[in-house]
Amino acid sequence: MPASIADIIVVVKWWRHLLSSLRVALNLMRILLDGHGGDGAPSVVIDALARARANYGSQVVLGVVGQQQVLAPLLAKAKLQDAITLIHADEVIGMCDAPGKVVRGKRHSSMHVGARLLKEGAWDAWVSAGNTGALMAISKLMLRTIAGVDRPAIASLIPSMKQASLFLDIGANVDCSSQHLYQFALMGSCYMQAAEGIAAPRVGLLNIGSEAIKGTEVVKEAALLLAADKSLNYVGNVEATDIFQGVADVVVCDGFVGNVALKSMEGTARLILNHLKHELSSAPVARIGAMLAGKALRRTKAAISPSEHNGAPLLGLNGIVVKSHGSADGYALACAIEVARREVEADLLTRIAGAVEARV
Amino acid sequence: MPASIADIIVVVKWWRHLLSSLRVALNLMRILLDGHGGDGAPSVVIDALARARANYGSQVVLGVVGQQQVLAPLLAKAKLQDAITLIHADEVIGMCDAPGKVVRGKRHSSMHVGARLLKEGAWDAWVSAGNTGALMAISKLMLRTIAGVDRPAIASLIPSMKQASLFLDIGANVDCSSQHLYQFALMGSCYMQAAEGIAAPRVGLLNIGSEAIKGTEVVKEAALLLAADKSLNYVGNVEATDIFQGVADVVVCDGFVGNVALKSMEGTARLILNHLKHELSSAPVARIGAMLAGKALRRTKAAISPSEHNGAPLLGLNGIVVKSHGSADGYALACAIEVARREVEADLLTRIAGAVEARV
Repeated sequence: MPASIADIIVVVKWWRHLLSSLRVALNLMRILLDGHGGDGAPSVVIDALARARANYGSQVVLGVVGQQQVLAPLLAKAKLQDAITLIHADEVIGMCDAPGKVVRGKRHSSMHVGARLLKEGAWDAWVSAGNTGALMAISKLMLRTIAGVDRPAIASLIPSMKQASLFLDIGANVDCSSQHLYQFALMGSCYMQAAEGIAAPRVGLLNIGSEAIKGTEVVKEAALLLAADKSLNYVGNVEATDIFQGVADVVVCDGFVGNVALKSMEGTARLILNHLKHELSSAPVARIGAMLAGKALRRTKAAISPSEHNGAPLLGLNGIVVKSHGSADGYALACAIEVARREVEADLLTRIAGAVEARV
Repeated sequence: MPASIADIIVVVKWWRHLLSSLRVALNLMRILLDGHGGDGAPSVVIDALARARANYGSQVVLGVVGQQQVLAPLLAKAKLQDAITLIHADEVIGMCDAPGKVVRGKRHSSMHVGARLLKEGAWDAWVSAGNTGALMAISKLMLRTIAGVDRPAIASLIPSMKQASLFLDIGANVDCSSQHLYQFALMGSCYMQAAEGIAAPRVGLLNIGSEAIKGTEVVKEAALLLAADKSLNYVGNVEATDIFQGVADVVVCDGFVGNVALKSMEGTARLILNHLKHELSSAPVARIGAMLAGKALRRTKAAISPSEHNGAPLLGLNGIVVKSHGSADGYALACAIEVARREVEADLLTRIAGAVEARV
């Protein structure tokens, strides 16, 4: 009796899963970086590779994609030419390039080459600090989404008074249905289990009040879907002020609201730090005070710094893609590599596929 | 020939306008406070009345609505019994009362009495620090909206590196059409002209990128409406990070997004100040530093404090209603009274009616 297509798919899936588990067990994890993404590229990328090499030694195979003539001399200068695999890509996507145009207009870009290699299984994860819209569009086109996921989302870890919470979507999807929000919750929960080791992540729905009657029609519908799924540890509505109190491990919203919230947080932090800087340098006594309290001030800045939580996972794709902040330095970009490493180690893709499949 | 109803309405409108202008010219402005709204009521209300009395002298007639048995002794104690008019209201609306229930369930509340007196023209403005949802619902029911305004909005001044910007809607309307956003822009622009004296307020649309292709369908449609109205000084999309750079005087969004943004700002500010407090008290040297830099730290806190910008106007109603933050102290509540005073002085209602009528 010939095997059905479904049987073949199951076998292929299992085979891939087995191979990936084997690779992890044999320390053959392979993470690829975009040589041209971000404000400080390519030098920041080389710095991050050096840090990752020092962190992981031979446990992780590291590679970089980009223009050979630019990257080869920098790798040689950093004495990384033997430790890091360099893969050539002709074109570079700029931070201001329109995603819609570059998807088909710059087919030889580092983002295309990176996504292709990820799809072919030659590498396990792909990290870029480049143009977010282009990264999502190219990854979506080349990797496609996991079966059952309608739309991939971008997530971000944000600091709180306790531990960090995963916040999604932060900009990939502006018009969302309640089903989309529900899928974001499933994916976010899988991520926090896999990457942060939380057994039953508390999932909250971003809303403008704690009562069930609050919110848009879409949000109210999503609340019903979330409450009905007993496999989720759903804790109900979460207000934006509460995120920082650590009331949930995963906070779900549409990409428009998430993006506005994240930028409101960034803007407020910058406003306060600018005021503080200005006031602390305004009078000699204040300057002496600032010197004495320097360590405390630096610690506060570090605690709320996005660097510590750099590395926004693109969830729902058939491949592990992590977006670094465009303004990341070498340290922050190395944090994004660590996010990718954890996702591979915990086999996040299989987890998401399982969680979504169970509910399709 | 008998006058038509339209003629009569015009005459009545003119008559009211004339009376209100006369009252302002004769310094007979009358502002009424809710005696029971807010966390610190009624003592904070008495404190605010004392401050307003000191600020304005006999230029503004001040009144308070609430339970006589509670308020009369407090006014007497503060020696304000002759300076402040006390109007009795039997019932008190709690901060946790559901707006839908109290609108018809507590008809003798201070909010009902205040709105009724405003409607009857006995007072010019009404200020409450109570339950926001109830205040909006009761005001809407009793005052109705200005002709041409579909939905009233709640606005809030938020601090920036330069001057403050008016941000609306911050929570009254969760599901908005592009027409609603357009009306918010018109009302916000009128407010900044009237209360802040800005001749051509720059109006921005809150979005997740500066490009025209960004945003939800509703936001993209609103952008077209705003750009088409040459009477508005429309400056295009504004990102949440930019609000604090003072790139626009009025920033428009729906109430869900606005509420989330505002709470994200509040949460971030609280997170940073808590971290700072913790770090500055952690070591003796840091404590000495904090003492020396105390003035600078206090100034930073004051600059971002919502107290300075307390007083959220409810725009689009047939009456001047100002919402104070529930946690306001006497100083902050007096700031909300000042917002009301400016709205009356600049005849905001006539301005909004004119702006909206021109476009209906």
